[in-house]
Amino acid sequence: MSKEEVVLLDFWVSPFAARAKIALAEKGVAYECREEDLLGGKSELLLKSNPIYEKVPVLLHDGKPICESINIVYYIDETWSSPQLLPPCSYGKSHARFWADFIDKKVFETGSNIWRGKGEGLEVAKKEFIDILKKLEGALGEKHFFGGDTFGFLDIILIPLTSWFYAYEKFGGFKVEEECPKLIVWIKTCMEKKSVAAVLPDPEKVFEFVTMMRKMHRIE
Amino acid sequence: MSKEEVVLLDFWVSPFAARAKIALAEKGVAYECREEDLLGGKSELLLKSNPIYEKVPVLLHDGKPICESINIVYYIDETWSSPQLLPPCSYGKSHARFWADFIDKKVFETGSNIWRGKGEGLEVAKKEFIDILKKLEGALGEKHFFGGDTFGFLDIILIPLTSWFYAYEKFGGFKVEEECPKLIVWIKTCMEKKSVAAVLPDPEKVFEFVTMMRKMHRIE
Repeated sequence: MSKEEVVLLDFWVSPFAARAKIALAEKGVAYECREEDLLGGKSELLLKSNPIYEKVPVLLHDGKPICESINIVYYIDETWSSPQLLPPCSYGKSHARFWADFIDKKVFETGSNIWRGKGEGLEVAKKEFIDILKKLEGALGEKHFFGGDTFGFLDIILIPLTSWFYAYEKFGGFKVEEECPKLIVWIKTCMEKKSVAAVLPDPEKVFEFVTMMRKMHRIE
Repeated sequence: MSKEEVVLLDFWVSPFAARAKIALAEKGVAYECREEDLLGGKSELLLKSNPIYEKVPVLLHDGKPICESINIVYYIDETWSSPQLLPPCSYGKSHARFWADFIDKKVFETGSNIWRGKGEGLEVAKKEFIDILKKLEGALGEKHFFGGDTFGFLDIILIPLTSWFYAYEKFGGFKVEEECPKLIVWIKTCMEKKSVAAVLPDPEKVFEFVTMMRKMHRIE
C-alpha cells in the first residue's frame, strides 16, 4: 500500500486553516502545508479544488479535496479514528455541532465589524461580540474544555479565532478578560497544548496583518 | 423500557421544520408535532428549548432539545439507524455536508431577497438565486438524487425549500424550469415520495403566506 498523501492549502493568519492544522496534529497525521498567496494570486490548485468559494483551507487527501474548515475537521475525525474529537453519543455530537455552527456564524464576522467599524457601528459590534463571547462562556460552564476534561472538537473550532482577539481589543478599545474571565482561562489551558501553541500565529502579527487590511480598506 | 417520546416544535410553512419531518418519516419514527404560533407568541417550551435562536424547529427527544434543522437531521440519522441518510464513507459525508452548508447559507436568504426586493435589488437577487440553483444542478449532475439512486440527506436538506419557489417566481417574474430544468425533474422525483409529499405545504399556500409577509413589511 502506498503512503497516503495529505496536503493542506493554507494561509498563515487564517483561523479556519488553523482548525485543520490543530485537528491533524491531534491525530498525529503528517501532512504537507502549502501557503497560498491570497493577496497576490491564488494557486490553480486552490481554484480547481474549491471552485465554489475559492478559499483556504482545502484539505487534499490522496488528491481528493475537502473544503470548508468545520467540514474538514469532521472529515479528519472520521478518517483517522484516534483520539476521537467529537463526543461519542449522538446527543453530545448534536450539542457540539450546534455550537460549532454558532461560532462559525458569529465570531469572525462580528470581530471583523469591530476592526472595520467606526462610531456607532463599532459600539454595536463590540456589544454584539461580547454578548457572543458570554454565550460561549455559558456553554463552557465550569468545564476545562467545551467537551469536558479533554480537548476536543469545539475547542478546535473556537481556539484559532482567539488569536485575533488582541487586534479586536486594540481597535475596539476593550478587554475580553474584563468581560469573560473564564474564557481567558480556557484560552490559556488550550495554549498549553503543543498542537495549539505550535499552530496559532502570534497575536501581535495578527494585529499587524489587520492594520494592513485596514489600510487596504482605507479605514482611518 | 418505556416508549421514547419524540416531539417536534413546528411551524407549517417552515422549510427548516419540514426537513425534520421528512427525516423522521424516512426513519419511520412516530412523533408529536406541536404547531407554534410564531406570529402571535412563541411557547414557553420553545423559548426554553432554544434560548439562543428562539426558532423552530426544535426536536425534543425524551425531553432533550436538539436545535437547528441540519443538526436535527444529523441527530435523526445517528439515532435511528435505518435507512441511513448520509453516505457511508467519510468522503461522501464531507461532500454532503459541504453542499448542505452551501444550501443553508444561500437558498432561503437569496429567495427572501427576491420577495422583499424591488428594482435593481430584485434583479441582483434573481440573478444570484439562479446562479445558486445552477450550482446545485451541477452538484446533482445526471443522478436521480443528490447521493445517487437513493433519496437521502442532501435531498432532505434542499427539497423543503422548493415549496417556496412558486412565490419567488411570482414576485420575481421568472421561471425556475426555464433556467434549471434538471432541478425541476429532481423536485418531481422527490415529490413522488410519500415522506416528502405528505409534509410539504402547497406552494399556493406558501405564496399566500409570503403575500401576507410582504404586507406586514409594507412592501408595495
